[in-house]
Amino acid sequence: MNLDDFLSRSRKRLAGFLTEFLDAKKSETAGVNAWGRDVTERLGAYTLRGKMIRGALVLLGCRAAGSRITQDAVRAGAAMELIQSALLIHDDIMDNDILRRGEPSFHRRYAALGGRENIAGAEHFGLSMGLCGGDIAIFLAFEALAGMRTADRQTLAAVRLFARELTLVGLGQMQDLYAGATSRKISEKDILDLYLYKTARYSFSLPLAVGCLIGGGSPALRRGLERCGEHLGLIFQLRDDDLGMFGNEQEIGKPVGSDIREGKKTLHRHLLTERAPAGERKKLEKIFGRADASEKDIQVVRDRAERLGVREEVGRRIEALRRKAEAGIHRLPAAERYRTLLHELLAYSITRKK
Amino acid sequence: MNLDDFLSRSRKRLAGFLTEFLDAKKSETAGVNAWGRDVTERLGAYTLRGKMIRGALVLLGCRAAGSRITQDAVRAGAAMELIQSALLIHDDIMDNDILRRGEPSFHRRYAALGGRENIAGAEHFGLSMGLCGGDIAIFLAFEALAGMRTADRQTLAAVRLFARELTLVGLGQMQDLYAGATSRKISEKDILDLYLYKTARYSFSLPLAVGCLIGGGSPALRRGLERCGEHLGLIFQLRDDDLGMFGNEQEIGKPVGSDIREGKKTLHRHLLTERAPAGERKKLEKIFGRADASEKDIQVVRDRAERLGVREEVGRRIEALRRKAEAGIHRLPAAERYRTLLHELLAYSITRKK
Repeated sequence: MNLDDFLSRSRKRLAGFLTEFLDAKKSETAGVNAWGRDVTERLGAYTLRGKMIRGALVLLGCRAAGSRITQDAVRAGAAMELIQSALLIHDDIMDNDILRRGEPSFHRRYAALGGRENIAGAEHFGLSMGLCGGDIAIFLAFEALAGMRTADRQTLAAVRLFARELTLVGLGQMQDLYAGATSRKISEKDILDLYLYKTARYSFSLPLAVGCLIGGGSPALRRGLERCGEHLGLIFQLRDDDLGMFGNEQEIGKPVGSDIREGKKTLHRHLLTERAPAGERKKLEKIFGRADASEKDIQVVRDRAERLGVREEVGRRIEALRRKAEAGIHRLPAAERYRTLLHELLAYSITRKK
Repeated sequence: MNLDDFLSRSRKRLAGFLTEFLDAKKSETAGVNAWGRDVTERLGAYTLRGKMIRGALVLLGCRAAGSRITQDAVRAGAAMELIQSALLIHDDIMDNDILRRGEPSFHRRYAALGGRENIAGAEHFGLSMGLCGGDIAIFLAFEALAGMRTADRQTLAAVRLFARELTLVGLGQMQDLYAGATSRKISEKDILDLYLYKTARYSFSLPLAVGCLIGGGSPALRRGLERCGEHLGLIFQLRDDDLGMFGNEQEIGKPVGSDIREGKKTLHRHLLTERAPAGERKKLEKIFGRADASEKDIQVVRDRAERLGVREEVGRRIEALRRKAEAGIHRLPAAERYRTLLHELLAYSITRKK
C-alpha cells in the first residue's frame, strides 16, 4: 500500500467515525436549542472538507507501533481533525480571512446568516458565532478523545499529550500574531521555534505520538516518531513558504506573493533582509506587508531572493533536515512498510507543488 | 463552618494549586517563546481575581460525597476556574466588553500592549491575542484535569463530564448571541433553556457533579446535586436579571439599566412585552437595546415592570424554584453540614444585593 492509498483509506475511516459521532451529538443536543443541530452539521461538513492528514498520521503511528487500526485510534484521529477545525476557525477570525478552501470561512458563514436575518453588526455577530463554534469543536475533540475504550491509563496519557501540545500551539500562534504585527526584528531562532511549535510538532509529532501511544508502541518508538515529525514538519513549512514565494499560482491555488503582501515573517524574508545591502533592504522592507504591492513589486522580491541566494539557502536547510529525517525514519523500531510510508511522506513534503 | 468560611478556605486552596500549576507551566514553556511566561502570568492573575465559587462547589461536591478534600478535587476545582477564565475572556471579546471586574478585560490589555508597541490594528491584535489566551486556558484546564491521580476511570469520567457540559455552554452562548441580536421573538422556553445551559448547569450542576464523582459519591447523590444545581442556578440568573433592572447602582457596581440598554432578552423583558398593552409595548420595545436610553427611559421600563406585575411574577418563579431546591437539598443523601452549606447558598442566591 502506498501513501496515497493509506491516506485515502484513513480519510474514509475518519470520515465515517466523525459522521457517526457528530450525528450522535446532534441528537443529544437537539433538546438544548436550534444551534445543536446547526453547529454539529457545520462542523461535520467543515472537517470533512479537509485532507485529514493529521488524523491519518494518528493511524500511521498506531500501525507503526505494530497494532491494527483500532476504533480508538480512529477516534483519536477524528479528535485530531476536530481540533484542527477549531484552530482553523479561530485562525481565520484572527487573520480576517474570508475564504477557507475556496469557500467562505466558518465565521463568515455566520456573518452571512446574520446579514440574511438583518442583524445589526452582522460582521461581529459572525465573528462571535465562529468563536463559539471553534470552542465547541475543542470540547467535542476532548469528549471524543476521552471516550476511548482501551486502557484508561493510555487514554488519559493521550488526553494529556493533546492538551499539553495544544498549549504550545497557542503560544506559537501568539508569536505568529506578534511577529506579523510588530515592526521589531524577529530573530531566526524565533521564526524556527514558531515553525516547530505551530506547525511541526502539532501537525506531525503529536498525531504520530498519539497513534503510537494507542497502538501500545515503546517509548523509544514514540520519541523517534516525534523527532521525525519535527523534521518533516519543518520541511513542510519551509516548502510552504517557498511555494508561497515562488510557486505557480495555478498549482498552489492562491495568489503568489500573498505571504509577501501579508507581511509574514518567513525565514525567506529574514534571510533576504540579512543579505540585502542596506539601500536595497529598505526598499524591500517597504514591499513586505503592503496589501497593494504590485506584481512588479513581488517580482522584485522574488528576483532578489534568488539572486542573493536566499532560495538556495532555504533549500540547503531543507536538505539538511531531509537527511536527518531520512536517518531518523531508517532507525525507527517499526515494520518496514510503515517506515516506507514515512519515507514517502518525506519525499512528498519536499517535492509537492501545492 | 458557615458558607463564607467554606468559600474563603476553598478559595485559598484553589489559589495555591493554581499558582503552583501555572508556575510549573511557566517554566515548562519558557523555552518556547516569550508568550509562555506572559500568558501563564496573565491567566494566573486573571483567575485569582475571581470569587472562585465554581471551584469551591467542586470541593463542596467532594465533601458532600463523604470524602475529605483531596488534591485531585482541588485540581478539578482549579480546572473549573481556568475554564471559567477562558469563557469570560471569549465572552468579553464577543460582547466588546472593555472592562471585567473593574479592570481592562483580557483582550483589551493585549490591545493596550499593541498600542504601546505601535502595532497597526492594535484593537484586532488585542482581540486575536485574547482569543489565543482563552484557548490556552481551555487547554490548561484539560491538562490539569487529566493530571488527577485517583482512579483513572474516575478521572476520565470527569474529563468527559466537563467536555460534554461545555459543549452545551457553547450552544447556550450561541443562543444568547442570537437572541441578543435578532429582532425575532424569543420564546420563554428559549430564554429559560439558555439560563439552564449557559448558567445553571455549568456554574452549579457541573462543579457539584465533578466534585461528587471525585469524592466517590453515589450516582443518586450526583443526580441530586445536579438537580439542585439547576434550581440554584436558575434562581441565581433570575435574581441577576432582577438586580440588573431594579438593583441599587452603588451595590451592584454597574449602571442600573445596563441589561436594558444592551437589549438583553431577559425573562423580565419577555413578560413585560407579553403583558403590556399594544400601544405601550411598541414604546417599551424601542427603549430596549438603545445604548443611549436616558435615565427617564429606564425608569419608564422599571415602572411598567412593577405595575404590570412582571417583577412579582419573576418573584413567584423564584419562590417556586426555591421550594424545589429546598426540598431537593433536604433529600440529598449527604451529611447535614454540607446540606446546610447548600441551604445557605440557596438563601444567598435569593437575598443577595449584588
